[in-house]
Amino acid sequence: MIRYPNGAPAKTKTQRKKTSKPVKTGNRGMGLESDINDSNLYYLEKNLCLITKRPTPINVVKVDYTRGAIITNAYFEKQSTTDYNGVYKGRYIDFEAKSTHSKTSLPLSNIPPQQVAHLERVLEHGGIAFFIIEFTMLQEVYLIDAKHVIDFINKKERQSLSYDFIKTNGYEIKRGFHPRLDYLPIIEEKYFK
Amino acid sequence: MIRYPNGAPAKTKTQRKKTSKPVKTGNRGMGLESDINDSNLYYLEKNLCLITKRPTPINVVKVDYTRGAIITNAYFEKQSTTDYNGVYKGRYIDFEAKSTHSKTSLPLSNIPPQQVAHLERVLEHGGIAFFIIEFTMLQEVYLIDAKHVIDFINKKERQSLSYDFIKTNGYEIKRGFHPRLDYLPIIEEKYFK
Repeated sequence: MIRYPNGAPAKTKTQRKKTSKPVKTGNRGMGLESDINDSNLYYLEKNLCLITKRPTPINVVKVDYTRGAIITNAYFEKQSTTDYNGVYKGRYIDFEAKSTHSKTSLPLSNIPPQQVAHLERVLEHGGIAFFIIEFTMLQEVYLIDAKHVIDFINKKERQSLSYDFIKTNGYEIKRGFHPRLDYLPIIEEKYFK
Repeated sequence: MIRYPNGAPAKTKTQRKKTSKPVKTGNRGMGLESDINDSNLYYLEKNLCLITKRPTPINVVKVDYTRGAIITNAYFEKQSTTDYNGVYKGRYIDFEAKSTHSKTSLPLSNIPPQQVAHLERVLEHGGIAFFIIEFTMLQEVYLIDAKHVIDFINKKERQSLSYDFIKTNGYEIKRGFHPRLDYLPIIEEKYFK
């Protein structure tokens, strides 16, 4: 059963290992998604902010109503926006999470043009837009403002965002037990002070 | 084919009539959803704000990869949030659209508790939260702040929101050709002046 966690119960490290499959470079690993969902649930419970994951868009072709609305034919649609959005202190927050197995860079091929366009619009309308980027092999996660990434992409000089670029322009997110990825203090520090 | 419009091409009135089925009282009619999507697309093109529809959450049970990732078993999940959110002038916007065939009221049974809880949280975090309510028989559509609706629900005095209550506490949304439901000027007037 494939689940799209939306504040789903956290898996232990052992459970995750058992069910994990090799993830292609640059695809968002379930580990990162699960860590962000866990953190959002923590923020929700502590009443600190409200960030939710957008459901995966699915085009439903056929539904069998004789069995109680079972979808029997459907396909995944391209995500035209980002995975997460929400509100903190009245401000609009929007971000995308990316994970890479490379120790040196995140290939830009993992950031589809429609996500870049969406984040550009968020910035134009005064929202807070960023990426959360995980270097799985280094066990480091960074928050980097979307503007840095968009400007870099628009220069068209390189095919990937280097680790150094992300480290220089981003902020490392503290890993912990609960929340597992405490990214909210960075938002507070960077956008509200 | 069931489609979940996300800025989908607008249907003409004739097309809509041909394909429309009787909608249960209080369920969001596809007409209202389509009108809001059309308006959001208009606002996007005019660069006025960025409001998107959350995809319908679907739990995927089985995927046939031999035919190119066709979903062969899945079911609809309960929407735990609202249908729309986005950003206008930096502020977070969140709303739910409801439609009723009744000329006198919107039954509260059409507003699930988890949506009320979600909108309460949006307000707590300083976001702008409201309902767009359509009286299909009267061809009138109102924008009403979520606080009015939540306070009314918490009183537990009545089982429905009366037309008069909505008219008194809400704002009628001008219908037009393009955008079909021009709700943004009401947000500007009510929350930014």
